[in-house]
Amino acid sequence: MNRYCVIMCGGAGTRFWPFSRESRPKQFIDFFGTGQTLLQMTVDRVRRLVPEENIILLTNEQYAETVREQLPGISQEHILLEPARRDTAPAVLWAAHHIAARNPDASFVTLPSDHVILKEAAFHDALRQGFEFVEQADRLLALGLPAKSPNTAYSYIQKEDRMPEHPDIFRIKTIAEKPPREMAEIFVKSGEFLWNAGIYLGKARSVISAFNRDVPDMASRFDVDSVCYLGEEENKFIGDIYPKTSSLPVEYAIMDRAKNAYVLEADLGWSDLSTWNALHGISPKNKEGNVTQNCRSLLYNCNDCIVATESDKVIVAWGLKDYIVADTDNALLICPIEAEQRIRNIVNDIRERFGPAYT
Amino acid sequence: MNRYCVIMCGGAGTRFWPFSRESRPKQFIDFFGTGQTLLQMTVDRVRRLVPEENIILLTNEQYAETVREQLPGISQEHILLEPARRDTAPAVLWAAHHIAARNPDASFVTLPSDHVILKEAAFHDALRQGFEFVEQADRLLALGLPAKSPNTAYSYIQKEDRMPEHPDIFRIKTIAEKPPREMAEIFVKSGEFLWNAGIYLGKARSVISAFNRDVPDMASRFDVDSVCYLGEEENKFIGDIYPKTSSLPVEYAIMDRAKNAYVLEADLGWSDLSTWNALHGISPKNKEGNVTQNCRSLLYNCNDCIVATESDKVIVAWGLKDYIVADTDNALLICPIEAEQRIRNIVNDIRERFGPAYT
Repeated sequence: MNRYCVIMCGGAGTRFWPFSRESRPKQFIDFFGTGQTLLQMTVDRVRRLVPEENIILLTNEQYAETVREQLPGISQEHILLEPARRDTAPAVLWAAHHIAARNPDASFVTLPSDHVILKEAAFHDALRQGFEFVEQADRLLALGLPAKSPNTAYSYIQKEDRMPEHPDIFRIKTIAEKPPREMAEIFVKSGEFLWNAGIYLGKARSVISAFNRDVPDMASRFDVDSVCYLGEEENKFIGDIYPKTSSLPVEYAIMDRAKNAYVLEADLGWSDLSTWNALHGISPKNKEGNVTQNCRSLLYNCNDCIVATESDKVIVAWGLKDYIVADTDNALLICPIEAEQRIRNIVNDIRERFGPAYT
Repeated sequence: MNRYCVIMCGGAGTRFWPFSRESRPKQFIDFFGTGQTLLQMTVDRVRRLVPEENIILLTNEQYAETVREQLPGISQEHILLEPARRDTAPAVLWAAHHIAARNPDASFVTLPSDHVILKEAAFHDALRQGFEFVEQADRLLALGLPAKSPNTAYSYIQKEDRMPEHPDIFRIKTIAEKPPREMAEIFVKSGEFLWNAGIYLGKARSVISAFNRDVPDMASRFDVDSVCYLGEEENKFIGDIYPKTSSLPVEYAIMDRAKNAYVLEADLGWSDLSTWNALHGISPKNKEGNVTQNCRSLLYNCNDCIVATESDKVIVAWGLKDYIVADTDNALLICPIEAEQRIRNIVNDIRERFGPAYT
């Protein structure tokens, strides 16, 4: 009952346009046509680890309605609405205070809501081991995954000394965000680097202490009497201080600096699903390497494509290699997978030319 | 008042799939986003030549409702509904009898309803000249267009002796349907061949005589007292004989055999619009050679493509050369223009796999 979970679902990615939109980022989409959105799958995944009343959703005000619709079982009190976008550090710090105000002995895990984890049992084992580890002492813990390729869009954690009695846990030496290609290749070869899953554990107290040590300016704003984190008072207080807080990712704020930061290495069948290519990577393919999502497709002379639609539309494609075909009600994207890094720019072009209805 | 027009609008082309469907062939589509369907444009085009009450629509029973909706001004009596598909010869013969029953001195022109004619004044001039020519004597006349390329999907008319006093009119030597590439190239080089527009003129009497001479078996079925072609009687009579009649194109039945068949050469800015490529050919292009129909498009590194949608959807394409992108509510086609001859097969595949809702 001392274990809590904070699910971060305020992100506004555009890289999955036209499926993801500003008004409906990918965590709110039923990506695999299973009947569950990525957010709903994330919540289901932790139900076996923490009681439902200890699940906290942290999102942007703009998505309040969507979150309530998708997760009717979550208590209103536990849906934390950021009044402004300030990256993950202020969000995690707020969550730590919110939890500590209710249970000073609590520990918690923060989870991204838009990733895929295929090995659920391994995920449960890793989190149980992680909770025990951070409950034993004043420690912060990240989850790291064996780096399988030199992906330049990922964050990497360099491990050093292995912990005695914890064969899968290491001290964190450093965290490197989105390295250049050559560096990513060295990382993978070295065997010292893990992909950072963006999953962190710690006692609420330990997290607050780390912020006090490493980012005291930010920490001092949040470090007030716990009544400020209860009921109506909380919205008022956060509405006041949040917009004044600096924007910072939690990796830089504490995990990369804290002397008591560790990483648990685990293979979770994880993908951050940040791009169409990532989706192609983890999806079942036919013998031509094509992935089709939710659609009736006829592909002639097509290889290594991903073809997706939201409806029961028929899609016929001929002669496409390594292409994304993504079709929605009001937008269609036909684009080489290798150009997917440009989708962000495309979305900007569209907003400029045709207005926000399409983005 | 002796001049009539028969507009053939029973065709069921699939080559413009997914825009054209079995339930809505291309004559019923507003192809250019002008607010008029090809059929409506065809009717408008002849209003200056024949009185509205002399315009006859010949279509298949299946399209009766669509024709009435699109042409509310046409008299019910002049919408002739084929109870079965029997190609153009029985249709033209029926139309000749229908017209002769009302006006034994009538002449008429048959017009396809799904072609494009850009030079309207030249069209009017040619038809006026054509009507005069067939009214002077027992003659049949086709309209032929300067053959501008060795298109293998077209029908070709070989001209011979020029008519004295009619510098643009020639005797027909032969008609060749869909020649192989090498032959089409010889046709174009020779200067003797014209593209066949599928537009024919003659007195109703002359047309009936030609059928009597050249296809007596078919002609005898239709050669009955004119009361059979009036009012309720007509539907009953046609419903009886039409299904028993052989299927035959009018080119073979009479135009290619009749000794009194002529061709009028005229440049009408004509396209039979039988394929996406034909549409690409006659449409305005941007400097990369791309044609966009009714859509908001962003084309990056695309050349010589045709991108079409029915809605105000945004279409983004990247790196396509010589492609068709045709998007409708329930079907999307992405296909090289050079593979468009296969669309017919694709449509069959779709019907088999996903059912008739998509074809």
